[in-house]
Amino acid sequence: MSKLIAYISSLEVLTENEAAQISVSFTASSLKAGDCFLREGQACKQVAFVEKGLLMYSKITEKGQEVVCDFAKEGDWVTQYQSFIAQSKSPLSIKAIEPCLLQVISFNGLMELYANVPTFERVARRLIDQVFINMVKRSGDLQMLKAEERYAKFRTEQPDILQRAPQYLVASFLGVAPQSLSRIRKNS
Amino acid sequence: MSKLIAYISSLEVLTENEAAQISVSFTASSLKAGDCFLREGQACKQVAFVEKGLLMYSKITEKGQEVVCDFAKEGDWVTQYQSFIAQSKSPLSIKAIEPCLLQVISFNGLMELYANVPTFERVARRLIDQVFINMVKRSGDLQMLKAEERYAKFRTEQPDILQRAPQYLVASFLGVAPQSLSRIRKNS
Repeated sequence: MSKLIAYISSLEVLTENEAAQISVSFTASSLKAGDCFLREGQACKQVAFVEKGLLMYSKITEKGQEVVCDFAKEGDWVTQYQSFIAQSKSPLSIKAIEPCLLQVISFNGLMELYANVPTFERVARRLIDQVFINMVKRSGDLQMLKAEERYAKFRTEQPDILQRAPQYLVASFLGVAPQSLSRIRKNS
Repeated sequence: MSKLIAYISSLEVLTENEAAQISVSFTASSLKAGDCFLREGQACKQVAFVEKGLLMYSKITEKGQEVVCDFAKEGDWVTQYQSFIAQSKSPLSIKAIEPCLLQVISFNGLMELYANVPTFERVARRLIDQVFINMVKRSGDLQMLKAEERYAKFRTEQPDILQRAPQYLVASFLGVAPQSLSRIRKNS
């Protein structure tokens, strides 16, 4: 059983036929480290399930600096959902930090899958709610917490990403200078 | 048949049993003009289907001015979905402009309804996608269009609200001074 089907089966019981229909609706796609899944300013054409690897969401600030907004790894979904659903310009890029293996579906593919496998549409409802929760969580964390608290939270919630991602990207995500991150790490 | 059931039936075929389960999950609630459905800064506890009346979404700017972000009327759903789903503070208020009749459901009520009526969860997936599309549309319109273009678009898309809402609220929604709106209306 693929990781994608295992993941969906953990949320809803799938018949063999449903699992088969879901499997054929997705296409395997690989990215090298540094490759873009989505470029800022383009419409997001796809949703992907990450089978392997690490990616980051980033955007360019008004000062031209690239800021990391989030990470995604095995078992996560990647897309800029607003851009995907409205076919509007994405305010973010999504890039591979490690070589990645993705299972990808297009907008039309997804709409067809919803029509053919109602169970998948129910799973999607829950995943889409999670997009909203993440939006709220993300904007809240950066506003409300101090750098040390952000680091502590990140270390608790995503210890593996702290190991896997280059430190300057972790610093960018936490909104601190790389040297401040070194100091915080030593002191905590 | 209630307006709520008629609306949902227009999206998905419902059995009598499903329609009955949906009906009992919602509670009728009325608002007087000026009443709040949701106050800025509070967590949104409910989603409502508007059977009758007109409401507005508004927020207070840093200068303390109330700005209209959107309107909702018969056949629309009202909620601040991010706040509802994450139980976080709402950045917006939702207020009745006219006396309103709503069909209201709580968070727990909605989760139960999803579990009992899978068809409703599928309908919800489509409605939630619409929340994203509206977010994109709203932010895009205000940034990209001139005042005259915003007015023309609003008049085409929502001619009834142009008649029903007080002019100072329409002006606020379009991001123009009330006297500018009068001028634009005369010239168009």
